[in-house]
Amino acid sequence: MYDVIIIGAGPAGLVAGLYAARCKLKNLLIENQTLFSQAITTSYIENYPGLEGSSGFELIEKMRKQAGSFGLESILGNVKSIEKKREKWLVQVEDRGYESLAVIVAVGASPKKLGIPGESKFCGKGVSYCATCDGPFFRDKEIVVVGGGDTAIKEAIFLTKFASKVSIVHRRDKLRATKLLQERAFSNERIEFIWDCQLTEIFGKNALEGVRIKDLKTQQESEILSSGVFIFVGLTPNTDFLKAVLKLDEAGYIITDEEMRTSAEGIFAAGDCRKKSLRQIITAAGDGAIASNSTQRYIEGLTKG
Amino acid sequence: MYDVIIIGAGPAGLVAGLYAARCKLKNLLIENQTLFSQAITTSYIENYPGLEGSSGFELIEKMRKQAGSFGLESILGNVKSIEKKREKWLVQVEDRGYESLAVIVAVGASPKKLGIPGESKFCGKGVSYCATCDGPFFRDKEIVVVGGGDTAIKEAIFLTKFASKVSIVHRRDKLRATKLLQERAFSNERIEFIWDCQLTEIFGKNALEGVRIKDLKTQQESEILSSGVFIFVGLTPNTDFLKAVLKLDEAGYIITDEEMRTSAEGIFAAGDCRKKSLRQIITAAGDGAIASNSTQRYIEGLTKG
Repeated sequence: MYDVIIIGAGPAGLVAGLYAARCKLKNLLIENQTLFSQAITTSYIENYPGLEGSSGFELIEKMRKQAGSFGLESILGNVKSIEKKREKWLVQVEDRGYESLAVIVAVGASPKKLGIPGESKFCGKGVSYCATCDGPFFRDKEIVVVGGGDTAIKEAIFLTKFASKVSIVHRRDKLRATKLLQERAFSNERIEFIWDCQLTEIFGKNALEGVRIKDLKTQQESEILSSGVFIFVGLTPNTDFLKAVLKLDEAGYIITDEEMRTSAEGIFAAGDCRKKSLRQIITAAGDGAIASNSTQRYIEGLTKG
Repeated sequence: MYDVIIIGAGPAGLVAGLYAARCKLKNLLIENQTLFSQAITTSYIENYPGLEGSSGFELIEKMRKQAGSFGLESILGNVKSIEKKREKWLVQVEDRGYESLAVIVAVGASPKKLGIPGESKFCGKGVSYCATCDGPFFRDKEIVVVGGGDTAIKEAIFLTKFASKVSIVHRRDKLRATKLLQERAFSNERIEFIWDCQLTEIFGKNALEGVRIKDLKTQQESEILSSGVFIFVGLTPNTDFLKAVLKLDEAGYIITDEEMRTSAEGIFAAGDCRKKSLRQIITAAGDGAIASNSTQRYIEGLTKG
């Protein structure tokens, strides 16, 4: 029986864990081995305050070590469900059940897929959603990046370290990314922009050979030969298993108040999985601290009552 | 004419500045030379995620350098008032005025005073609100710490590095501080607790000689001889100059929504100066990022309109 179970080992979960452990709450963090934190797949972080120019992996490792030093316990496992059991919550991890007074959900969000032919076939064999993970496989190759937001542009710039040419295919005629990133991309000689276009297919016999694109203004189709396709077209929160328990918005993000309280008493949410305006490591970390603080107050209320 | 003026150079202000500069907003940060950030006066920070065991001063310097590298501009000055001037805000710094489309208020909060005889007389001459600043002056001396929250206990522990004995005077019979800090303090041989007592006077001829305390249960008064008194009894937000412009709560904290919008259009607030449940460096930093993001959206809305 735990005071708090934390689901997720990205910045929100680890900071919630750090604060929970430091407050001497009996804690357990459950980390999903197949869901990677957006942070851990980030090649280069330059705007995490106080820690300039580290990789996402390094930052996460530091947070993990720090939380561990205060006594955060963690296990690997895939949470199937959460259900109320009298005054407690039962967290089902495969065939084992763990009970706690409170739960902090910090399950993050995962990259959206395009849902076009060839995407699944070449996933992990040319199609990637993580530049840090797969960039080095494309040294001196030509690749395609799909998207126009901060992540797409940032990772495209990173990929020019390896690829000889990066074609950014974007369905609009301008980028959503911040101006600084735009300027850097526009002045990068290895980056080419293909505006107003959408991918319709990823093709190849055994290996990935290229993509088919459609011009959304003229409806004309054409092909780009390419060894790799990196897709950065947004996120989907990893909240499917929570539908029955928590109030989610139409996109699946968990609705909370400013204290990270969800619609279910005793369940708190933090980080990218909750409905919020800005998804950054620093805001996820702040959420984690607040969620733990609210959890502590909630548990104090239970024991008094 | 600036896009955004940021008032305050603690974690909230510097992170707001980092994000604003990185988004290429024309920015100016105004730093008050006489108001110190709570962070900068913190002796030892162990729970800022990703940066274990640095001093507040070091962390602030890192944030300052990082924000500067993106192009944050800053000046020293004491902001007297903010007033609306058509579509813009006029920020009055002594006899100069600065205009901007938006303002981020990150002025923090300052230590509360006890308001007892002798406190002003010995301020800076034995009475202190900052252990990092003044602790080293009390090597091998006996001192008094007032308070029972996280800050009081943490700084009392820090002060045992210097002082031979630290008497913690607290008006209740238990501490508000987190359990971990309590345990550390209780097991520290240089710390003594004086429960249920209040300071009534700080006395001394030329130098500070001691304090008079009153037992709140028995009403009996007594004296403790002491060379120094460190006072940690809470905070007051530095928001006096904003009363006429912004909606504040009864304690003076700025009321915002989750996007850091205040009651005045174009003014945002971040960090300890706003009404919130948890005041920590990590949450102040998160606030700063959100405030800048909201500012950017607000300015985009202005230019479209």
